Amino acid sequence: MKMKALIKDTPQKGALIKEVDVPAIRDNEVLVKIKRAAICGTDIHIYFWTAFAQERLKLPMIFGHEFCGEVVEVGRTVKRVQQGDLVAAETHIPCEVCFQCNTGLMHICKDMKIIGVHTTGAFSEYTALPEICAWRLSPKTSPDVGAVYEPFGIGVHSLTRHKVAGKRVLIAGAGPIGQFAVAVAKLSGAMTIFSTDVSDERLTMATRMGADVVLNPKKVDVVKEVMQATDGFGVDIFVELSGNGEACQTGLKALRRGGAVSLVGLFNSPVSLDLVNDVIYKEATVYGITGRTMFGSWAEASDILDSGKIDITPVITHHFPLEQFDRAFETAASGTAGKIIFDVA
Amino acid sequence: MKMKALIKDTPQKGALIKEVDVPAIRDNEVLVKIKRAAICGTDIHIYFWTAFAQERLKLPMIFGHEFCGEVVEVGRTVKRVQQGDLVAAETHIPCEVCFQCNTGLMHICKDMKIIGVHTTGAFSEYTALPEICAWRLSPKTSPDVGAVYEPFGIGVHSLTRHKVAGKRVLIAGAGPIGQFAVAVAKLSGAMTIFSTDVSDERLTMATRMGADVVLNPKKVDVVKEVMQATDGFGVDIFVELSGNGEACQTGLKALRRGGAVSLVGLFNSPVSLDLVNDVIYKEATVYGITGRTMFGSWAEASDILDSGKIDITPVITHHFPLEQFDRAFETAASGTAGKIIFDVA
Amino acid sequence: MKMKALIKDTPQKGALIKEVDVPAIRDNEVLVKIKRAAICGTDIHIYFWTAFAQERLKLPMIFGHEFCGEVVEVGRTVKRVQQGDLVAAETHIPCEVCFQCNTGLMHICKDMKIIGVHTTGAFSEYTALPEICAWRLSPKTSPDVGAVYEPFGIGVHSLTRHKVAGKRVLIAGAGPIGQFAVAVAKLSGAMTIFSTDVSDERLTMATRMGADVVLNPKKVDVVKEVMQATDGFGVDIFVELSGNGEACQTGLKALRRGGAVSLVGLFNSPVSLDLVNDVIYKEATVYGITGRTMFGSWAEASDILDSGKIDITPVITHHFPLEQFDRAFETAASGTAGKIIFDVA
Amino acid sequence: MKMKALIKDTPQKGALIKEVDVPAIRDNEVLVKIKRAAICGTDIHIYFWTAFAQERLKLPMIFGHEFCGEVVEVGRTVKRVQQGDLVAAETHIPCEVCFQCNTGLMHICKDMKIIGVHTTGAFSEYTALPEICAWRLSPKTSPDVGAVYEPFGIGVHSLTRHKVAGKRVLIAGAGPIGQFAVAVAKLSGAMTIFSTDVSDERLTMATRMGADVVLNPKKVDVVKEVMQATDGFGVDIFVELSGNGEACQTGLKALRRGGAVSLVGLFNSPVSLDLVNDVIYKEATVYGITGRTMFGSWAEASDILDSGKIDITPVITHHFPLEQFDRAFETAASGTAGKIIFDVA
Repeated sequence: MKMKALIKDTPQKGALIKEVDVPAIRDNEVLVKIKRAAICGTDIHIYFWTAFAQERLKLPMIFGHEFCGEVVEVGRTVKRVQQGDLVAAETHIPCEVCFQCNTGLMHICKDMKIIGVHTTGAFSEYTALPEICAWRLSPKTSPDVGAVYEPFGIGVHSLTRHKVAGKRVLIAGAGPIGQFAVAVAKLSGAMTIFSTDVSDERLTMATRMGADVVLNPKKVDVVKEVMQATDGFGVDIFVELSGNGEACQTGLKALRRGGAVSLVGLFNSPVSLDLVNDVIYKEATVYGITGRTMFGSWAEASDILDSGKIDITPVITHHFPLEQFDRAFETAASGTAGKIIFDVA
Repeated sequence: MKMKALIKDTPQKGALIKEVDVPAIRDNEVLVKIKRAAICGTDIHIYFWTAFAQERLKLPMIFGHEFCGEVVEVGRTVKRVQQGDLVAAETHIPCEVCFQCNTGLMHICKDMKIIGVHTTGAFSEYTALPEICAWRLSPKTSPDVGAVYEPFGIGVHSLTRHKVAGKRVLIAGAGPIGQFAVAVAKLSGAMTIFSTDVSDERLTMATRMGADVVLNPKKVDVVKEVMQATDGFGVDIFVELSGNGEACQTGLKALRRGGAVSLVGLFNSPVSLDLVNDVIYKEATVYGITGRTMFGSWAEASDILDSGKIDITPVITHHFPLEQFDRAFETAASGTAGKIIFDVA
Repeated sequence: MKMKALIKDTPQKGALIKEVDVPAIRDNEVLVKIKRAAICGTDIHIYFWTAFAQERLKLPMIFGHEFCGEVVEVGRTVKRVQQGDLVAAETHIPCEVCFQCNTGLMHICKDMKIIGVHTTGAFSEYTALPEICAWRLSPKTSPDVGAVYEPFGIGVHSLTRHKVAGKRVLIAGAGPIGQFAVAVAKLSGAMTIFSTDVSDERLTMATRMGADVVLNPKKVDVVKEVMQATDGFGVDIFVELSGNGEACQTGLKALRRGGAVSLVGLFNSPVSLDLVNDVIYKEATVYGITGRTMFGSWAEASDILDSGKIDITPVITHHFPLEQFDRAFETAASGTAGKIIFDVA
Repeated sequence: MKMKALIKDTPQKGALIKEVDVPAIRDNEVLVKIKRAAICGTDIHIYFWTAFAQERLKLPMIFGHEFCGEVVEVGRTVKRVQQGDLVAAETHIPCEVCFQCNTGLMHICKDMKIIGVHTTGAFSEYTALPEICAWRLSPKTSPDVGAVYEPFGIGVHSLTRHKVAGKRVLIAGAGPIGQFAVAVAKLSGAMTIFSTDVSDERLTMATRMGADVVLNPKKVDVVKEVMQATDGFGVDIFVELSGNGEACQTGLKALRRGGAVSLVGLFNSPVSLDLVNDVIYKEATVYGITGRTMFGSWAEASDILDSGKIDITPVITHHFPLEQFDRAFETAASGTAGKIIFDVA
């Protein structure tokens, strides 16, 4: 059987649509008929063939890793999912053997593989998904929401270590995951949510998702504004989702003594920190956060989304058919869009 | 200077209003001109002169301990409050000397005294309050809300150890503190809040405060209903605020494996628990909860109430002048009222 | 191929040795050539055919579940162990599908099976072990130690939630797991370890394993002795490993305000607790503890035992060949022995 | 009454002994007759009049802040200590008014004053100590040990957030606090303790205090050595006590995925960190640690030292009479000494 797939074939900007064989599954895999797939920052690197992509990929390959779809075939040893299930995919494939995998830390496996980077991806009509990466969605889940469960799970995980109710929360970065984090913080009873970004469009969306105060660091002094809004108290919780070193420094300055931090966004280079004043004297607790716990973050995400208490669809700003991938990636690279979805089926 | 005070003078049901001297304050006390005072379960025991009261009180005394008012005079060594401040009172007077007091556990001091039980209370126009028990309220706080900060703080504390967002929460007992706990759980993003009580009036109010499912154990099988509503999963969190042994047993049966419990309500007698099936095999974590942490719970309460994100005034169902104390206590004892307030000034 | 096995064949006291086929393994199993097996309390129930055993077992079956041995064959899908590995067995077989299994709580799986109770056991020369239950031991591990890793892991897990250094710890019950808990508490820097048991022989061994004070509740008032030894402070940590209701009540009375408790021992019937004075007013935190986390407890156990910093072999008091099972079970039932081992190979 | 005191009087290297009045105490202070005082890094800055000292001190003043002595007079409102008590001093004077002071975080008070920096110090025969800073020692405490309770408390606090038993711990910096941390980690059951320092003398002492592996970063590649010693696993816990930026970077590289860090040493300048690889992808938890919790760390320190299970006196390498302050400070500045004590009385 044949299927349509978006393939990165040559080491330069671009990609192409091709007909390829529907993959055969192994005993521990399921075959997923994809409904929707979403574009992640990694995919933008791949499309534009940045240094990041050049260091990691072996061409040609199908890329893409945020998706949901229907299980149409299950491998012989598969126990957790069945034919007909609607599933989303955990992007990280753990080795299942290392210390971390054996002690509840599978998501920071020492020998992690990433779908669509180290293995065949999912911008295609079908994909073979390891059972260990399949998460069953409630059948009533809208496919659009299903396609962004993976980045939504990062938003959930970025707040996992914090009790948010009644607290002042600063969320740096208002890309899709920042938007999700704002929504989760709002749901969790945050007293004041500060959202920062260099894009005013994204800040407008953050307000819609629940931010109480939005600040553009190109225009205002974020620390000063936070201090004024909190009577000099600072924020209880700082979530860094921008991947920008200055935003990290700023957030730590805005943190109160005894506050807590989640670092999630990926920086391009080392970050210089005033550890004495911003971490040690404050007795700040700083949590590194990677992806989603398997599957605690997924279960939390399901509980939250199934409850119907928040609507994350406003974060999805564009839909394209797979064929219009060029337009899709140009839009994604603009820095002002929300989540962009390929309507595969 | 003279003032009006409600005094328990004889060892029998009742009390009386009397003119007495406004108290002189010590160096470490402040004089509070009381605006509102609220009736607590303990006060009902005192008014009706139950065994509980007989064992604890020395008559005559002014009773009452939930109140707010304005500081009109401060002792010589007082640092944390000033004349003109609106304050509420922590009921528990810690010794400030024991291990618990010295390690952040002042609220479970080994030699605790209780205002209105061991020391002069506050159903009066003025009271002398130890600085260590004074909590400054935002000046914009409504006096009605200020009067119930203390029981609201128990509601806050009952959820302190739990991350509530996206979770299934069972709150047993829908008296005023149960209502407050429902409101805080709602604010904190609970997915489903189950509230149980034997009074349908209170369950109606619980729905208004945010309960998703209300259950009267006299009419339905609570465990069965919870299991049906959660597809056999059970609740993630159980908060026992009824002080009823059966409610405690029921709540533990409704708890999922790996769930967590706060025990807050005071039982009249020992409770027989199926520890193997309900605690050990479930790896439940059970937290004993007393009063309010000093002053973590108070700060959380202020953050939540100052944010304006929840309205707790519906829980206040009656107001009386101090002179109508007989009617006030009869109403309080009915088991269907919410919080009852004396409008003192 | 044939092997020797200890079989429970008829519903009455006793068992018998029989020649049976070496089991064939499934794709997700490994074949273990057993070196040593140890007798657990459950096995005593099975041998003497108590009500506990009658309710759970289907005869005939090979029983026994504490053991170590060498992997001599691996199933097709097995990844974590290899031929030649020395392994011990996690007794609990998780379903790998339920919420608990998917969120790091496999050890309290909703549909747990137990080796030697629900499935074929290991008092035999070979056994087929599911990969998910195999723990690789360091090759230098003595087989005697390997055979008691499973109960030692409970001792480790019973202290997992506690910081022990400098603390006063009461461990109720000085059977093998109680002995292991004493050793782990000692290693972890406990200031004072109180061990209680009704057997003076076991208390003598507890002293050898590191207990500072041993108390026989048949002879002394445990609460009074603990209070005297701690200047009225009480213990910081109480670990209940006796499965005796009175010991549980006593331990809670001996706990300081703000202390923490692990309940591990299995009670025969509900336990009546003074929750108000012993849990709520004390703000005690009570942890239910089941078996071993998979595989956090195992990794901790390996770290501790591989370090060579404690010697648990004194807890092993008897060795028998499999053929002398009658003598072995009579000794085990005496209530004064430590761990009893079958030298299988 | 007159007393001898070591005074920093002019803005240049040095100090002088002078006769001054014994201080009068306030209502909330106690007068302490000093037995022993110890030299802290801050005192070295003051003696040599570095930029650090120039920015902070107003001359003339008595300096010094690590000491123990006998209470010979108590202020009118003092409750927690009595005449005759042996006390050590918490160096940090909290305001008792701010949010941090009111929620169990007094040690990170927003308006902290430091004894011997912002207020009169203790290199003298008597000092007036605020009650809030007095910690009662067991009367059996040796004065030498009493004098170093304060830095020992930092060693305790540096490990407060970690469960050490069975773990691999890297402690960077083998000055006195590093030595104390090694001793506490040893007591707490660490499997392997790595101690690093640029002084071989200090590493020799670290071995004596319990380090299993000592590494001089001037001579060996610390990350490589740690990885070899742990089979590529890395350390579970990293405690930074050197105040050296490179040691901080090295420690983070040596940390395992899912490990935890305490940052305690004070860096002279910002530190550049590879947050993505060393914190985020590892999901490291980084705790800023300041001084000692009030008084949790002190109570832990007393529990540990009163137990007699560790001997910290080898860390005290020199004694001087107050008059030999020049020799004392030259020795302290050498970088190879342990703790240096003035025998005051």
